[in-house]
Amino acid sequence: MKILPDSLERITQQLSRFPGIGKKTAQRMAFQLLEWNPEDVQQLGEVIINSTEKLRNCSVCNLVTEADPCPVCLDTRRDDSILCIVEDSRDVVAIEETSRFNGKYHILGGVLSPLEGVGPDQLNIQSLLARIGDIVEVIIAMNPSVEGETTSLYLARILQERDVKVTRLARGIPSGGDLEYIDGVTLGRALDDRHELI
Amino acid sequence: MKILPDSLERITQQLSRFPGIGKKTAQRMAFQLLEWNPEDVQQLGEVIINSTEKLRNCSVCNLVTEADPCPVCLDTRRDDSILCIVEDSRDVVAIEETSRFNGKYHILGGVLSPLEGVGPDQLNIQSLLARIGDIVEVIIAMNPSVEGETTSLYLARILQERDVKVTRLARGIPSGGDLEYIDGVTLGRALDDRHELI
Repeated sequence: MKILPDSLERITQQLSRFPGIGKKTAQRMAFQLLEWNPEDVQQLGEVIINSTEKLRNCSVCNLVTEADPCPVCLDTRRDDSILCIVEDSRDVVAIEETSRFNGKYHILGGVLSPLEGVGPDQLNIQSLLARIGDIVEVIIAMNPSVEGETTSLYLARILQERDVKVTRLARGIPSGGDLEYIDGVTLGRALDDRHELI
Repeated sequence: MKILPDSLERITQQLSRFPGIGKKTAQRMAFQLLEWNPEDVQQLGEVIINSTEKLRNCSVCNLVTEADPCPVCLDTRRDDSILCIVEDSRDVVAIEETSRFNGKYHILGGVLSPLEGVGPDQLNIQSLLARIGDIVEVIIAMNPSVEGETTSLYLARILQERDVKVTRLARGIPSGGDLEYIDGVTLGRALDDRHELI
């Protein structure tokens, strides 16, 4: 027998489409909505609906944005000569939080993954090459996955032909890490890339 | 500098109000929405908004429902003489999935918790007492927490005065459990409540 009302089932079903949200979690979230005050529920629904209308990708760097070009591309205080290439917009947030980078970004929109049918043409590589003109340094900041490594190497190779310095994020032991628990690949790399202390 | 557009920030903010959904998870969900097709996003927003309009509590048993009385209360094939008292509507779903119960339900709407200001008057106890008339057995199915136990005892005491059999869910070792890893309270109770095998 069907116990829960259709609308609750539908919310559960829709919410469980998010990766990482299982059926039980989705159901708990749906029930939670019943305890919110109606204005808040209304607001959540509205911001979700509005997101499809308002959000787009910046035509220059592909960052998710409401205004095109995005505020980062328009910011004249940022250094135009250094470009950081990342997989997606969330990586920009992570890098901005460090306050260590003041250049511009280029969002690749993913990584090369032949198995999933993602080749160079599916990534924002043409628009990257079009921007290289006045760039002095390109920092490749892919995620440290196999696909990320492959993509980094691919980018490094095609950028080699241009008159631009190509760097990438340092690999090593993470801050606060415990040597004992760090995986062998990371620790091996940290040994290989060791540098003088003073 | 603010990197993400306002609408994305608002979705993140609203989603992170769900218990168990932290800021990072909420942000990942918000970004995920950008990859859905617009119809699905629209649908999610709409079911959320509609939930506030359509959903209410059954005036008999307090189950969350679209129609009042709820389908469980209206179902004439169910046994009217046996009533199962649970904390909230999700517990009804869990019990229904066992297919072992064919009576009616009463949703208490919480448990007694003096520290959080929940006394008998905040729970659906008056409406429970009003239903007792023709009931032969009341099964108290609270969660096995301290508050759940307290509430069970409270209910048992006030139902004692009525001409009704009061039972509660058996305690013991869960199916598939490993004795070695079962907590002492549970195992001790399972020993106390042991019964003959044949």
